[in-house]
Amino acid sequence: MDLTDIAALAQPTGEKILLLVLDGVGGLPLEPGGLTELETARTPNMDALLEAGGAGLHVPVATGVTPGSGPGHLSLFGFDPLRYRVGRGALAALGVEFPLKPGDVAIRGNLCTVDDRGVVVDRRAGRIPTEEAGPVLELLDGIRVPGGEVFVRPVKEHRFLLVLRPDETTEADIADTDPGVTGLPPLDVVPGSPGSEPAARVTREWLAQVPEALTDQPRANMVLLRGFATLPDWPRFPDVFRMRSLALAAYPMYRGVARLVGMDAETVEDDPAALVPALRDRIDDYDFFFLHVKGTDKAGEDGDFERKVDIIERVDEVLPALRGTGIGVTLITGDHSTPASMKNHSWHPVPFLLHGGPGRGHRSEGTAGFGESECARGSIGLIRGCELMPLAAARAGRLVKFGA
Amino acid sequence: MDLTDIAALAQPTGEKILLLVLDGVGGLPLEPGGLTELETARTPNMDALLEAGGAGLHVPVATGVTPGSGPGHLSLFGFDPLRYRVGRGALAALGVEFPLKPGDVAIRGNLCTVDDRGVVVDRRAGRIPTEEAGPVLELLDGIRVPGGEVFVRPVKEHRFLLVLRPDETTEADIADTDPGVTGLPPLDVVPGSPGSEPAARVTREWLAQVPEALTDQPRANMVLLRGFATLPDWPRFPDVFRMRSLALAAYPMYRGVARLVGMDAETVEDDPAALVPALRDRIDDYDFFFLHVKGTDKAGEDGDFERKVDIIERVDEVLPALRGTGIGVTLITGDHSTPASMKNHSWHPVPFLLHGGPGRGHRSEGTAGFGESECARGSIGLIRGCELMPLAAARAGRLVKFGA
Repeated sequence: MDLTDIAALAQPTGEKILLLVLDGVGGLPLEPGGLTELETARTPNMDALLEAGGAGLHVPVATGVTPGSGPGHLSLFGFDPLRYRVGRGALAALGVEFPLKPGDVAIRGNLCTVDDRGVVVDRRAGRIPTEEAGPVLELLDGIRVPGGEVFVRPVKEHRFLLVLRPDETTEADIADTDPGVTGLPPLDVVPGSPGSEPAARVTREWLAQVPEALTDQPRANMVLLRGFATLPDWPRFPDVFRMRSLALAAYPMYRGVARLVGMDAETVEDDPAALVPALRDRIDDYDFFFLHVKGTDKAGEDGDFERKVDIIERVDEVLPALRGTGIGVTLITGDHSTPASMKNHSWHPVPFLLHGGPGRGHRSEGTAGFGESECARGSIGLIRGCELMPLAAARAGRLVKFGA
Repeated sequence: MDLTDIAALAQPTGEKILLLVLDGVGGLPLEPGGLTELETARTPNMDALLEAGGAGLHVPVATGVTPGSGPGHLSLFGFDPLRYRVGRGALAALGVEFPLKPGDVAIRGNLCTVDDRGVVVDRRAGRIPTEEAGPVLELLDGIRVPGGEVFVRPVKEHRFLLVLRPDETTEADIADTDPGVTGLPPLDVVPGSPGSEPAARVTREWLAQVPEALTDQPRANMVLLRGFATLPDWPRFPDVFRMRSLALAAYPMYRGVARLVGMDAETVEDDPAALVPALRDRIDDYDFFFLHVKGTDKAGEDGDFERKVDIIERVDEVLPALRGTGIGVTLITGDHSTPASMKNHSWHPVPFLLHGGPGRGHRSEGTAGFGESECARGSIGLIRGCELMPLAAARAGRLVKFGA
């Protein structure tokens, strides 16, 4: 089922959908037969939704594959991440919320150190601190070139974002200039297609001015470029599902991915309780709401089982207030698993619960509460992450019959 | 997820993976509500791995499709058998372990009987016994033709393997010469593409000499050819997963399929206990080990429920010794089901268990032991056979994150 098929079935209704993402919520027990973070958390409100709703596990990308945040969220938005691929440069732009336009070329940059022969001696400029990198990157942002505009934005430490906005239409099939090892000079800018020549020209013009701009810098005296990418030309989520769509997220990356598929996006405080007034304020203006909670993933990456449990419980506490704003269909899940025991994203399928839709009914679930084991036995079963949005839309009466 | 995607994520680690294939292990109860062969078998070691690991069922090819040995194993190696198709001639070459080279054309041959007008009167030469066919096939192997080398190898009874090694590069798009019925002469050698003309020419030259070579034979006086195929040009398993890979198998077919995807392969005695010293000898030289047990499938095909149970128990007995050689991740399953009650391969999904990976954790399984019913409720669920290898690789820490 591709997005064109879904768009052909979508119809507007008054039914509002809430996609509540607890980033990295999927987890693992600390010992065999034990409980996961989600199973440990006291979640009476989610449990009640589960009993009256449907549950299952979803695979964000593919079996055995550990998703990054970008692909994990695209999947939740109904975009198969194996088909809808975002270049690394475009992901970097999303991460700092740079307003990328069609035709722009986004690139991941590293400040690096070269010796007087131009040979790379440190690919990360001694992991220069963010505050020290700031003024250096401002110098780079000041470079002007013929053939287009160029923007430089800080990311973290030696990492930055480079965006080209060439006057001519261009592709972005250009090889990395990062040699990947020290002892070599930066590689030439080599376009892989004639259509990428305009971007290659602007890149060369800009690179030619970098040494002079950084001439007084003790260690950050050159740059390496990777992951040339354009903004992908994809269907827009609000058009596919015919819903006015809003993202509420504390972190730029998640607002960025939402904007990438055409949603509006607003910043909220990094606290589950802050989602309630933010949602209440906008409930009449949109049909679909993607709410992002980062804390679960951060606690998982820190290996802090208890903190992850705590954040899940805090989200559960505000759930009735969130739904009370006027939500019809509620989908609660994660973009991937981040088990505290692994301190990292993992490939494990992610539990989800789906509730609501007037007169849409449900099949019976168990009563053990929202958690991995219960979801593995759930009535919806094991599905791909990108199948969740059609399911939520169906519950909201938003997909008409396929075929007569 | 195709193999290119997996290759882009694969990284080497020190973690060794064991794929232990009990050929045709999936089964059926002898009566409704009864136990299958695997459920009947006493398997304390597998049961213990299941409790601390993950379980599920896999579909080797597609729902309702009964796999042959080739596709069943390709699927276990991560190669989707609907996409990676082996021509029947190439499978025949694997089955007799003929060292097929790129550019070779492999063909399944039948000895047949023609009357004095050249009309086929018996398509199988009276099912000529293997020992009687041997000298006839040696005569055929002695034929020399211009334009390339030709090899003839016995298979069983009237069946043989014909391999062409044309001097010129060739394709193998050539129609069968077997008319499929008696009362017609063998069909002409008709290439379906200009690129197949070199192979067609060598075939015609060779066929032209067959009647004279077999002139004294009472019934095997001509041949029929089917399934012209080249060695497929596929990604290599060791490159895709970045593992030095070894197959240990008693039967040539399984070593052949393993070599087809680029593994090394060695012969072991046809006895589960023989696998232990063979694995121990090679444990330091490889990262991945495919161990093949044929007895389960043979017992199933013989309709011998008890013998199948017995062989499963004998494998279970050597499991601790196998794992003790230095295995990190263990995957135990079959390439298809061969229920004793059916005396044949079947389409039923195959139980699997997956264990190990340091610090990778697990979700909890039931405690009913390794078997079809428990696996149907397993935490990993129902997946495709070709998804198993990525899952095993993930557990071994061998797949990096997809997307940032």
